[in-house]
Amino acid sequence: MEFTTQQIAQLLGGQVKGDQSLKINKLAKIQEADQKSISFLANPKYETFIYTTDAGAVIVDKNFIPKSDVKATLILVDDPYTSFTTLLEEYCRIVSFIKNGVEEPAYISEGTQTGKNIYRGAFSYIGKNCKIGDNVKIYPNAFIGDNVTIGNNVILYAGVKIYSDTKIGNHCTIHAGAVIGSDGFGFAPQQDGTYKTIPQVGNVVIGNHVDIGANTVIDCATMGSTVIHDGVKLDNLIQIAHNVEIGKNTAIAAQAGISGSTKIGENCLVAGQAGIIGHLTIANKTSIGAQTGISKSILKEGQTFLGSPAFELTKYLKSQSVFKKLPDLQKRIEELEEKILNLTSLE
Amino acid sequence: MEFTTQQIAQLLGGQVKGDQSLKINKLAKIQEADQKSISFLANPKYETFIYTTDAGAVIVDKNFIPKSDVKATLILVDDPYTSFTTLLEEYCRIVSFIKNGVEEPAYISEGTQTGKNIYRGAFSYIGKNCKIGDNVKIYPNAFIGDNVTIGNNVILYAGVKIYSDTKIGNHCTIHAGAVIGSDGFGFAPQQDGTYKTIPQVGNVVIGNHVDIGANTVIDCATMGSTVIHDGVKLDNLIQIAHNVEIGKNTAIAAQAGISGSTKIGENCLVAGQAGIIGHLTIANKTSIGAQTGISKSILKEGQTFLGSPAFELTKYLKSQSVFKKLPDLQKRIEELEEKILNLTSLE
Amino acid sequence: MEFTTQQIAQLLGGQVKGDQSLKINKLAKIQEADQKSISFLANPKYETFIYTTDAGAVIVDKNFIPKSDVKATLILVDDPYTSFTTLLEEYCRIVSFIKNGVEEPAYISEGTQTGKNIYRGAFSYIGKNCKIGDNVKIYPNAFIGDNVTIGNNVILYAGVKIYSDTKIGNHCTIHAGAVIGSDGFGFAPQQDGTYKTIPQVGNVVIGNHVDIGANTVIDCATMGSTVIHDGVKLDNLIQIAHNVEIGKNTAIAAQAGISGSTKIGENCLVAGQAGIIGHLTIANKTSIGAQTGISKSILKEGQTFLGSPAFELTKYLKSQSVFKKLPDLQKRIEELEEKILNLTSLE
Repeated sequence: MEFTTQQIAQLLGGQVKGDQSLKINKLAKIQEADQKSISFLANPKYETFIYTTDAGAVIVDKNFIPKSDVKATLILVDDPYTSFTTLLEEYCRIVSFIKNGVEEPAYISEGTQTGKNIYRGAFSYIGKNCKIGDNVKIYPNAFIGDNVTIGNNVILYAGVKIYSDTKIGNHCTIHAGAVIGSDGFGFAPQQDGTYKTIPQVGNVVIGNHVDIGANTVIDCATMGSTVIHDGVKLDNLIQIAHNVEIGKNTAIAAQAGISGSTKIGENCLVAGQAGIIGHLTIANKTSIGAQTGISKSILKEGQTFLGSPAFELTKYLKSQSVFKKLPDLQKRIEELEEKILNLTSLE
Repeated sequence: MEFTTQQIAQLLGGQVKGDQSLKINKLAKIQEADQKSISFLANPKYETFIYTTDAGAVIVDKNFIPKSDVKATLILVDDPYTSFTTLLEEYCRIVSFIKNGVEEPAYISEGTQTGKNIYRGAFSYIGKNCKIGDNVKIYPNAFIGDNVTIGNNVILYAGVKIYSDTKIGNHCTIHAGAVIGSDGFGFAPQQDGTYKTIPQVGNVVIGNHVDIGANTVIDCATMGSTVIHDGVKLDNLIQIAHNVEIGKNTAIAAQAGISGSTKIGENCLVAGQAGIIGHLTIANKTSIGAQTGISKSILKEGQTFLGSPAFELTKYLKSQSVFKKLPDLQKRIEELEEKILNLTSLE
Repeated sequence: MEFTTQQIAQLLGGQVKGDQSLKINKLAKIQEADQKSISFLANPKYETFIYTTDAGAVIVDKNFIPKSDVKATLILVDDPYTSFTTLLEEYCRIVSFIKNGVEEPAYISEGTQTGKNIYRGAFSYIGKNCKIGDNVKIYPNAFIGDNVTIGNNVILYAGVKIYSDTKIGNHCTIHAGAVIGSDGFGFAPQQDGTYKTIPQVGNVVIGNHVDIGANTVIDCATMGSTVIHDGVKLDNLIQIAHNVEIGKNTAIAAQAGISGSTKIGENCLVAGQAGIIGHLTIANKTSIGAQTGISKSILKEGQTFLGSPAFELTKYLKSQSVFKKLPDLQKRIEELEEKILNLTSLE
């Protein structure tokens, strides 16, 4: 994507000082920028960079007066930091949603409806009787099964796989390779040591403003629905098992795993590689540290847990601090034993 | 998939009381059902739900006499719970195996044979000299390399990747995004600090009735075969390294990892996020808890291990219970030291 | 791939004793070989196997004199072990790079240049304005976004997804299902409990001789680049977060996770399921054990760390050895308390 400095100034309500037709295709920090980049100067501490930067353009305060020569074209605005953030967001929105139309061959089955401004990349597949909203971007090699419902402004990146009967709300982004709706891991042990597969006939229901990371997996429910509520943010390579429910605005970091039928509350934070066993309830606003293993329900809101098995934060810190001193403690016990022995033998 | 209540009653050897042409497309719990759902009433405790349920149809005991009005169409059978389970399994079997024929474009190379009732989804790829059995369902965007053998009644879901020379038995299900046969992680350190790649020329051999979860990875052997025996059940996002062997009817939960050349026995259970280092032997019927780290071979059958590094269950519970009391132990040692000091100074 | 014994002898500078037109398609250990296999005999300890092996051909020392009948065709060389290794490497190189040409349908966008001897598998996708070098092999269902640069001798296996603006050097291998350049996990918490997405406009830059395992994910930088330096080896299912930098010749095992903005030095080893939190610096030649959790920067080179939270090796071993004795220590404290009580009461 390329924009001229003039187009950028218009977007930001600013003024160009320099080359109005200069083409920009990147946003960068002022110390890392090249001639196709735009950067910004907000903090006076970084002013020296503006005299040495290779940036093609820099967003500056409208009252900025250079103390020396500046090579870059300047864009003068009221608040450079806010303007740069606006530009970043606008850039991302445009780049994400710019794809449009159908790249052939793309497969679409009978009975499926699609909305306006849809992008269906080459080798993308949509099954039967789906309802796909407006402004949905389906990248190449993505797969959508039968009877899937998808809202508006949703992006499915390359190679995403959506099993049949899944429901996805509005404003969701699902990154490459993520799998939504695979069978839950349900097997009934038989007397001869083999397993019988427990049929998984439920689905996955995803709310609005949900982001799902690359290669993350969400299993369908055995019956009913695995539910990901509005505003949930899932990182890469996460496991969400069957019949799990994740409350509004909960964020889960990479490689964490949530076992079957566990219900996580709203506004929780689960750090990377943490694990939560099945059939638990986790209260709202719970924080769970990296690599933590939760094996009991958490009923009181707002606590922090660490360790495997997990302890509440203050207890964890106490036990952990003693753990470090264990060799010392052992030595002190040995000294005590010797002293006692001496005392006893004295008598 | 839609069935009439009449079709369902025939399947179960039951009788319809109500609308024989009612169309059903879902199986649900009686308290969650809607008008397109069928549910069941087995336990008299739940009888009240039958008077309020929105289910289109309910499977009931043939001797059931309603105490009040029932909106739902009833299907009268000998044993409602068994009938519902039968229906679930039949539904799953039909839905899984209903796909048939070839959706174009699908790619198939020279020298490859396919059996009866095959499904080759759009954008699926089959390499050279493969043998694919009857009733194999290859979903869209799945990839099969060269010289691959696949038995009968196998499902490869969307985007599964099978490297060349892999062998897969009968009645296997492989979920979306799983990778079978990627190169083992073998690199020989050189004197200059770089690594030289150790060629990986083996393959993966998978038995019968094996289930493999979404985005799970099984590496090929350096030479010979990585072997997954009959009845093994693997959950999502699991790592199985080169030359690993997994014994019959062993089940492994999500995000667990098995390092190179380790041999796991039969009927073992490995819980989520557990890890087993390389070149070990794990006895039959071993249970390994979540997040456990196994660094030594386990030779005695039927034991349970927990912790990282792992302890046998009873030892783990003892050490763990003292770990919780560490701050208290430290305090008791300090008290002892003070008392000893007092005693000594007395003398 | 099939080769005659004569072709193999030529490659190794050896001589055939037996059937020169025998066709070989596999490399195997002498005790596991079948008639289509070639094996080797280097260590005299294994000589007995050569009289019983089913191998079609065996590489032996040119001075080898059989003490009994040998069924296999022999290939006489100066150094059987080195010859076999050469054969393995050559076999792998040929098999990996033999694919050539374009399998239709394959998608390629305007403004993209590709080099010589390229393979573009069916259903592979290349976006706009990419530069793809010589001898690049793009397997079926692989996806390459816009403005991607790829060097020479690179293999992208089936279903690899490369986001726009990624740069990849020469001699890299990326295994099936890996995702390069997905959005970093960046969300700014808002006052109402929701999250606002932080735009991720950076990219991923990968050096030369880098290997990346199946279903591994590398996120793009927020701004600037996530950097994987020359010679880095990444196993399967690894998470590399935004703005991470991994130094030359560092090897990382399966399911490890590196959080955002952390910089790992050169020649480090990170074992399976280890985790490193964000914004840390890890010195060169650091070794990090399996399931270890690193939460502080490591500034001194060449140390080994274990445990979660991590300890330097010697400290870890000490604390861990006492941890095992915790129940015993508790008992000894109780005994001391009793003795003290007795002593005190004596007075």
